[in-house]
Amino acid sequence: MIRVTVWNEFGHERKDPEVKKIYPDGMHAVIASFLAANEDITAGTATLDQVEHGLTQEVLDNTDVLIWWGHYMHRFVSDEIVERVYNRVMQGMGLIVLHSGHASKIFRRLMGTDTHKLRWREDGSMARLWVMDHAHPIADGIGEYIELPAEEVYGEYFPIPKPDDLVFVSWVPGGEVFRSGCCWHRGLGRVFYFQPGHETYPTYYDANIQRVITNAVRWAYRPVIYKPISGHLEPLKDISLGTKK
Amino acid sequence: MIRVTVWNEFGHERKDPEVKKIYPDGMHAVIASFLAANEDITAGTATLDQVEHGLTQEVLDNTDVLIWWGHYMHRFVSDEIVERVYNRVMQGMGLIVLHSGHASKIFRRLMGTDTHKLRWREDGSMARLWVMDHAHPIADGIGEYIELPAEEVYGEYFPIPKPDDLVFVSWVPGGEVFRSGCCWHRGLGRVFYFQPGHETYPTYYDANIQRVITNAVRWAYRPVIYKPISGHLEPLKDISLGTKK
Amino acid sequence: MIRVTVWNEFGHERKDPEVKKIYPDGMHAVIASFLAANEDITAGTATLDQVEHGLTQEVLDNTDVLIWWGHYMHRFVSDEIVERVYNRVMQGMGLIVLHSGHASKIFRRLMGTDTHKLRWREDGSMARLWVMDHAHPIADGIGEYIELPAEEVYGEYFPIPKPDDLVFVSWVPGGEVFRSGCCWHRGLGRVFYFQPGHETYPTYYDANIQRVITNAVRWAYRPVIYKPISGHLEPLKDISLGTKK
Amino acid sequence: MIRVTVWNEFGHERKDPEVKKIYPDGMHAVIASFLAANEDITAGTATLDQVEHGLTQEVLDNTDVLIWWGHYMHRFVSDEIVERVYNRVMQGMGLIVLHSGHASKIFRRLMGTDTHKLRWREDGSMARLWVMDHAHPIADGIGEYIELPAEEVYGEYFPIPKPDDLVFVSWVPGGEVFRSGCCWHRGLGRVFYFQPGHETYPTYYDANIQRVITNAVRWAYRPVIYKPISGHLEPLKDISLGTKK
Repeated sequence: MIRVTVWNEFGHERKDPEVKKIYPDGMHAVIASFLAANEDITAGTATLDQVEHGLTQEVLDNTDVLIWWGHYMHRFVSDEIVERVYNRVMQGMGLIVLHSGHASKIFRRLMGTDTHKLRWREDGSMARLWVMDHAHPIADGIGEYIELPAEEVYGEYFPIPKPDDLVFVSWVPGGEVFRSGCCWHRGLGRVFYFQPGHETYPTYYDANIQRVITNAVRWAYRPVIYKPISGHLEPLKDISLGTKK
Repeated sequence: MIRVTVWNEFGHERKDPEVKKIYPDGMHAVIASFLAANEDITAGTATLDQVEHGLTQEVLDNTDVLIWWGHYMHRFVSDEIVERVYNRVMQGMGLIVLHSGHASKIFRRLMGTDTHKLRWREDGSMARLWVMDHAHPIADGIGEYIELPAEEVYGEYFPIPKPDDLVFVSWVPGGEVFRSGCCWHRGLGRVFYFQPGHETYPTYYDANIQRVITNAVRWAYRPVIYKPISGHLEPLKDISLGTKK
Repeated sequence: MIRVTVWNEFGHERKDPEVKKIYPDGMHAVIASFLAANEDITAGTATLDQVEHGLTQEVLDNTDVLIWWGHYMHRFVSDEIVERVYNRVMQGMGLIVLHSGHASKIFRRLMGTDTHKLRWREDGSMARLWVMDHAHPIADGIGEYIELPAEEVYGEYFPIPKPDDLVFVSWVPGGEVFRSGCCWHRGLGRVFYFQPGHETYPTYYDANIQRVITNAVRWAYRPVIYKPISGHLEPLKDISLGTKK
Repeated sequence: MIRVTVWNEFGHERKDPEVKKIYPDGMHAVIASFLAANEDITAGTATLDQVEHGLTQEVLDNTDVLIWWGHYMHRFVSDEIVERVYNRVMQGMGLIVLHSGHASKIFRRLMGTDTHKLRWREDGSMARLWVMDHAHPIADGIGEYIELPAEEVYGEYFPIPKPDDLVFVSWVPGGEVFRSGCCWHRGLGRVFYFQPGHETYPTYYDANIQRVITNAVRWAYRPVIYKPISGHLEPLKDISLGTKK
């Protein structure tokens, strides 16, 4: 059983009537709900306004994959909690960063670059996410591309480190492209960034988007985690014994 | 259920008494046997001397992951069968190439470089395969490294294309290192090269080696395969409809 | 001094009046000319109809970087010459494959996949090549993107191996994206694929396109080439001497 | 002319007589000296005890490639200066991190992982650095491997992000391997980590080590830097104009 926690700053859904109509209980509720519909996944939620942002050490210790949605309140996320999440990724927890989470503290911390910088605009235009690697597990069940009738536009140059795997590149009518689905290993954990999900569109109800996020949860999940040792260590014993006499 | 076919040129085991003692029914029998002990895997075998080398179109069409062991008879593998295997990899079949299979026609065809060239010697020395990426599914259940009491030595420079993932690097007492576990996507298929398995050592009875090959089968298996289209294609319809009025 | 040879099948320019008007002496002449305008580059040419396609062993032995343009006559390129070019790439010669050269024998041989498959159409639409890696030497002197008023459309899925470096991704108005500038190391050689250059457009007169090809020549050029040894080799001597007593 | 600044915490050379004997003026002096012997390179130095650690904004603005050596005083490097260096890397300055610099604040900041963790010991054993990519510019002029008579041992697992390019892997008699030469692009800058250089050995006098560092300086240097824009941006103009009527 894969234990997912969906974290959301949960701001837009409370203050913007337009967003509230789409996600009355918050985006995290919708994401947790479609994930939990899978037999191999359980999904809890956590939000910024909870004690320790809902990410106590206990919650994180019992989370296999953390999903992150944040936008205008990144700066209110406590540095201590960011470090706690970081340490869990180092230890093997998966992390899926959605949409404006590209500018979150945790994503910037893990990438080591200015990932908050990119082109963007809201003009209600459609987006088409082309699959770049049909052999990648995150693309399972997806055809040539995913088409969304309306999404916020993000465009390159996106100053991420070279993705370990590049799964999607987006096309938008306004003339931009964007690396919209990217994988990295960081420490013992696996990280996926996925661009769609602006709060004013019903993106997380889209069947293909749900499929990608579900695939990503399974990809990021590590059933077996070995923690390598480090420090001052003696030479490995008996190395000469194996040599033929 | 993952359908594996283990292919072996099956020469050493018949003509070298030393090898026959270790693998009386051939290495393919041992490999198929430990794989089939898993509930999610079925494993058949095929050998060079069979009609069409045991790799008829029907066999390949019903193979999800093909394992390849060959050594001194690479040149007797028919070009037509190589092309058939190649086409199945392009369509999504997984391929695991073992040991001296680095010089096989199919591996050279898929890599596009002179992968038959490398340093080697048989001095019975031990080998230690260090894990380079503990977050990789092929390393699941493996500790810092795998130690084999005796293996053939392979050493760099190994002129492979840059691996998509580098899972193992080997250390040998004689002074060499070797990229001994490497992954690539090729077309819709996934390819893993794994160095251990010289015919004169009981390598394929080693629990860690069996674990890696089993992990690799699961990694290479693709339950869902979408075949992208190509050719002369009209612009995608309705691309303007999504743009905000 | 970097010694470039520009190879062209030189067919369209002779038989299509429209193409002849743009490239009266062939595309190879234009490419060799803008390259040779650089103080550090000399550029010769070779064409399909010459003896040994103009690629004698002597010519190749004196070529640091080979540029390849071919389209409808790939099948008339002799397998022997392809193997000669392949061997030179293995030995360290650079190779720049342009436009429809994605379907050439030499590119398919080096990639090991069905790179002839992709979406395409000629509708005279513009193309915008976005820079994906501003720190890459091939992007030197290029801004956010290169815009071409008219080019043939190529679209994903392009079944290339994962590029070692992804330098450009193209956007076209018809709704497609394409990985239009990709680097790989193959053996001791460096390979760059660059998508623009349909024969019916004056693409190779474009200052940015010339800049990219010139950058690519400098990137692919290897002033110093060490050829590693391989084969049956004894353990490296004196390895124990360095160990502290 | 490539402007290099060699930064050194400059502690061991002052307090340890053994180190002082090898590097009487500090390692930075030796490194700057062999670099400045090249016609295309000028090299200055900076140390921890200088005002702003010698890394004023003006110094950094006039540095194309920064070299970093630190060990036991990482924690005394001011966070403000680290951020200044970080910003210059984002803007295109090259960075070469040597030896124990793997645990420096700036390297950890740029990698986004716990790069301070690895196996290590000082037993005076030799080290052999195998070239993994003979086509890489940093390996120019190096043969199969570099052999050092004595170096500190570092061993995997080294929790770095997957290197964009893996240039060296080290072998040591004690049984470990280590990814000892690794490249990454970060923002507009290029970063190289190179393992050798323990203070108690005369490593930086070794001709091959000097060659690698010199190669790395040239590789990391960016003569032309384009700074991409970001933020709220309108659709690109005139995108429809190129489409055929």
